[in-house]
Order: sequence, then C-alpha cells, then structure tokens
Amino acid sequence: MYAPSDCGGGAIIRRLTSENSFHLKTYRHNVTVHWGDTDPARIVFYPNYFAWFDESARMYFDSVGLPWEKLMEKYGIPGLPIVEAKAKFLAPCTFRDEIVIETSIGKWNDKTFELNHAVLNRGLRAVEGYEIRVWTNPHPDDPKRLKAIPIPPEIRAAFE
Amino acid sequence: MYAPSDCGGGAIIRRLTSENSFHLKTYRHNVTVHWGDTDPARIVFYPNYFAWFDESARMYFDSVGLPWEKLMEKYGIPGLPIVEAKAKFLAPCTFRDEIVIETSIGKWNDKTFELNHAVLNRGLRAVEGYEIRVWTNPHPDDPKRLKAIPIPPEIRAAFE
Amino acid sequence: MYAPSDCGGGAIIRRLTSENSFHLKTYRHNVTVHWGDTDPARIVFYPNYFAWFDESARMYFDSVGLPWEKLMEKYGIPGLPIVEAKAKFLAPCTFRDEIVIETSIGKWNDKTFELNHAVLNRGLRAVEGYEIRVWTNPHPDDPKRLKAIPIPPEIRAAFE
Amino acid sequence: MYAPSDCGGGAIIRRLTSENSFHLKTYRHNVTVHWGDTDPARIVFYPNYFAWFDESARMYFDSVGLPWEKLMEKYGIPGLPIVEAKAKFLAPCTFRDEIVIETSIGKWNDKTFELNHAVLNRGLRAVEGYEIRVWTNPHPDDPKRLKAIPIPPEIRAAFE
Repeated sequence: MYAPSDCGGGAIIRRLTSENSFHLKTYRHNVTVHWGDTDPARIVFYPNYFAWFDESARMYFDSVGLPWEKLMEKYGIPGLPIVEAKAKFLAPCTFRDEIVIETSIGKWNDKTFELNHAVLNRGLRAVEGYEIRVWTNPHPDDPKRLKAIPIPPEIRAAFE
Repeated sequence: MYAPSDCGGGAIIRRLTSENSFHLKTYRHNVTVHWGDTDPARIVFYPNYFAWFDESARMYFDSVGLPWEKLMEKYGIPGLPIVEAKAKFLAPCTFRDEIVIETSIGKWNDKTFELNHAVLNRGLRAVEGYEIRVWTNPHPDDPKRLKAIPIPPEIRAAFE
Repeated sequence: MYAPSDCGGGAIIRRLTSENSFHLKTYRHNVTVHWGDTDPARIVFYPNYFAWFDESARMYFDSVGLPWEKLMEKYGIPGLPIVEAKAKFLAPCTFRDEIVIETSIGKWNDKTFELNHAVLNRGLRAVEGYEIRVWTNPHPDDPKRLKAIPIPPEIRAAFE
Repeated sequence: MYAPSDCGGGAIIRRLTSENSFHLKTYRHNVTVHWGDTDPARIVFYPNYFAWFDESARMYFDSVGLPWEKLMEKYGIPGLPIVEAKAKFLAPCTFRDEIVIETSIGKWNDKTFELNHAVLNRGLRAVEGYEIRVWTNPHPDDPKRLKAIPIPPEIRAAFE
C-alpha cells in the first residue's frame, strides 16, 4: 500500500456509489500489466492508467452499440474530446497483475458527461478516476473551432 | 480549440494564481511534441501529458538541489509516490509544437504536497493539472506498507 | 499495403520456415490495437510492435513453465537481456485490429538465442521480426558487468 | 555492460563507417532518459530507442530543409513509411542519462533508403541501428495501396 489512509479525498467514491450509477451499464476492461508498463519502483508508471481509461471509454461505447466512428459519421462530432481527467492512486499494481478497469457513466450533463473508471486488482480497488468528455460540432463561425452542443437523448438512453 | 468555454471549472486556475504561489520557485520543462506522441485526431494522446508532468516533477526537485535519489538515501523515503493526478485540457497540442510545462508547488500539507503543472503552447495555456504526492516511510508494523509522515521543513524551505 | 513487393528481403521468412522451427512450441499473444497505439497516419506507431514482441517473449517462457523470475532465482541471471531486435513491416495495422503475435524459438546458439515474432492480422502477415537475447551471469572480475555463459540444456528442452 | 563482447555481429558498424557516409550530413538528436522510459531492471525499455529513432529521422529531414509535410505536399508521398528497423544493444542506458542519437544516411537505394542511428552515452556507443524507409505514391490501380517509386535526385542531394 503506497497511498496511506490519511491522504484525504473520497469524492470519487461517493460518485461511484451514487444512487443512479447502479442503474447504468458497466464495462469491464481486462488488462494484463506487462513489464514495460512498470518503472524502476516495480509499479505501473501512472500515466498508463489514463491510457487504459481511454481504451475502456471507447470499448464502453462499443459495448452499447455506439462506436465513436459511427457517432462521428451520424452526428458530425469529431470524436468525444476529453476536457478533464483525474485519478486517485490507492494501491500500486505490478508486473503480471491481471486488472480490470470498470467503466460506467458517472453523470450526464447537458453537453458533457463523466465516465467513472475503477481499477480493480485481485478484488481490491487500486485506482479510481474519471474522464469528462464533451459533445461538440464544428463552430458555425469558425470550422477550426468546436462548439459544445447538447448530447442527444438517444445517446444517454443507450447506457440505461 | 476543442475545450469549449462553457465546460466550467476554474479551481485549478485559482490555485495556480493563489497568493502564495508566486513566492515559490517554478520549473520550466521544455518538451517537443513528436509524431509518436499524437494520435489519429492529430493531437497529443492525453496520457502523455501526465508523463510530462512526472518528468517535470522530478526535474523541479533536481532544480532546487533535491534529486529524489538523495532524498531516498537521506530520509528513507521510497520516492515520492503519487496519490492523485488531474488535468484539464483547454486546447490541443499537435506535432511539432514546442511546449513548456511550468511546474510549481501548489500547496504544502502536513504529509502531502501538490505540484501544479501548466502546459503553455505559444504563450497560451493548453493544459492545467496537478499531482499530489506523499512523504512516507516504511510502516513500523509492516515494512511492505508505507506510512505517511510529516514533510521535513527543510524540504519546503528549498522551494522558497 | 505500404510495404511494396520490391523492397527485397526474405531472410526472416526463411528463418521462420526453417526445418527445425516446426518442431518447437509456439506462443500466440493476442493484442487489440487501441487508439493510442496509432499515429496521425492512422496506423500503429512502429515502436509498439517491439513492445508487443517483448511481452510475447516473456509470456512464451511463462507458457513452458519458465517465468523469468524463476530463472533469475535459480540460475542467477539478471533476466534475458536483449542484444538485437529487428522487424520488417509488411502491412500496416490500424485501430481495432485484433492481431496475434506468434512467437517461437528461431535458433539456439551457445550463449544466445533468437526469438521469432510474426504479427498476423486477419490471417495475413503484417510484421516479421526477431529478438536475440543472451544468457549471462555477473562477471567474475566485475559484478557490475555481465558475462555470457552457455545456456543450460534443460532450458532448450523445455521448448521442444 | 549487458551486451557481452562475444555476442558477435558488426555489420552495422561497417555500414556506419562505410566510405560514403562521412560525406553526408549527420543529425544529432539530444534525448534525456526519463524515469518513465526505464523498466524494473532500471534500464531503458528497448522499444523506446525505436521511438527516438523515429523522432531523429524526422528531425534529420527537417534539418536539411525537407520536413515531411512539405514532401507529402510536393511529391504526393504519404510520409516515408518504414519497411525495416533494427537495433543492436551494446550497453544499457539508465535514468538521467543524456544521450545523443546520431542519425545519418546509410545508403540510398533506388526506391528506399537506410537511416543509420547510433546512440551515444557519455561518448560510448550504447545502441546501433537503422531504419529502411520507402518512397511511394498511391498505386495507379488501387489508390488504397502504395507503389514504390524512385527517389528524386534532389532529395539525395539535400543530404550532401
């Protein structure tokens, strides 16, 4: 354990156990920790967890029939750009660990949404985090910029 | 711009411009964005920002005469484990961008501290984030675990 | 196809189809190509293939009951250091491809051995490569250096 | 030293010291080895060398006034696809090493060329390798495929 109990926090845990989240679909992304994912301290180099979050986010959408390529084609979105990402590191993972990234919708906002990611290692919670992503279209005044627009209701419905 | 103005937030900016931070030393880590750092959307794949944060955190300590290897030797710490990391993505960076990671102490707590990281691209703020790291020793009851202990005052002083 | 037919070569293919190799065990390492593995050309950034080779090399040894940690403990080797790696890129792989790295012993030398790696994508050969690794012990005159020593016969036997 | 002297080889060295190469421009790419580039053996995880080769290849072309984006625009090439890459690992590099990738043209073929890359660490040669890249245009019969075509003479001349 390298994250002592007195390091504070807890907001993410509350979010993960909110009243609504258990109604929503969850995706479980299995990841094997390889040698090259770890550093001289013999633990996962932490940016890798965010790479696994990104993988799981995409596969979560795939799992409900909404691969991003199709959303891009149908809705003119340029993907689902990330606007914020956070992780709390509760316990280290090491070479050969077989971990699971559990991904679920944390919250739908009008134009953005939160994806919660929990990394489980042998049943214990090793990392908790989230990504906030945004629904956009090219800006009408400047096609090089993006403009946040409301998320279509059918997108939300697909995760219920 | 892929982070529209109505995505909220601001906590990090306040932290970065707090009354205390301008008294503290800042480290500027120059990074060239290479082709392999970017993805099919032609922008930096976001976990790379956290890798650059980690680099800058270590070089910041080096810059004040406190390389982690020496701290490990002198204080018996196992490095400075990360307990939390967050980033807000305000504008994308692309291949060939010459960016600067500006790293400074955000806040000293008793046993943990925050490092603020701001990614500047052509003078504009592209990413803002922080890392929280913890000062620990092996736990007296179980040397495999770590116990958070107070940060020595001379460590804080080195950044003033 | 981005590797035109007139780019020459063939040595690796001959090695992969040599008389001896079909007697040896093969390991099949399944890899999903994720978004972050690809670059703005929308194909796998080539250093990733070598990361997958390294993964497959370790899992191949696991698969015959010789995890490197046990070899390190039993034989005093520091792992199986790489001395050479090569790949030929025959066809690109892209996001969502489900590829297989087929790994087998290419050749046993006295103190080194070759691992052949073939990347198959939808049944077609996308990449061919090899790694040469060396069996060593700490050098008797200088424990910081390594000295190549003969590979024990039981190691070879495990792959037959 | 983890690459013992009796591991053979030498082909790359001969190529690097061939009669022609000293007439050609060389690019020196300075790289700092960061913590995250290294593995639990405390040495650079070897696929990273290939990432640095790729960086240096692009910067070498930049240095002679031929950034690939301009070549793509002017000649209709899709970049300079890699068809082969190889490295020999002579000595390990570790955290904090300040290395130099020396990149030069190894050989011009009709439609392909070789880039030699030598990694120097404190004046010693740590890694030697090469990349073979190909000059192509979309295939006239199938625009999804590429066809190797002769490298224009002015490209070669730029490196002399």
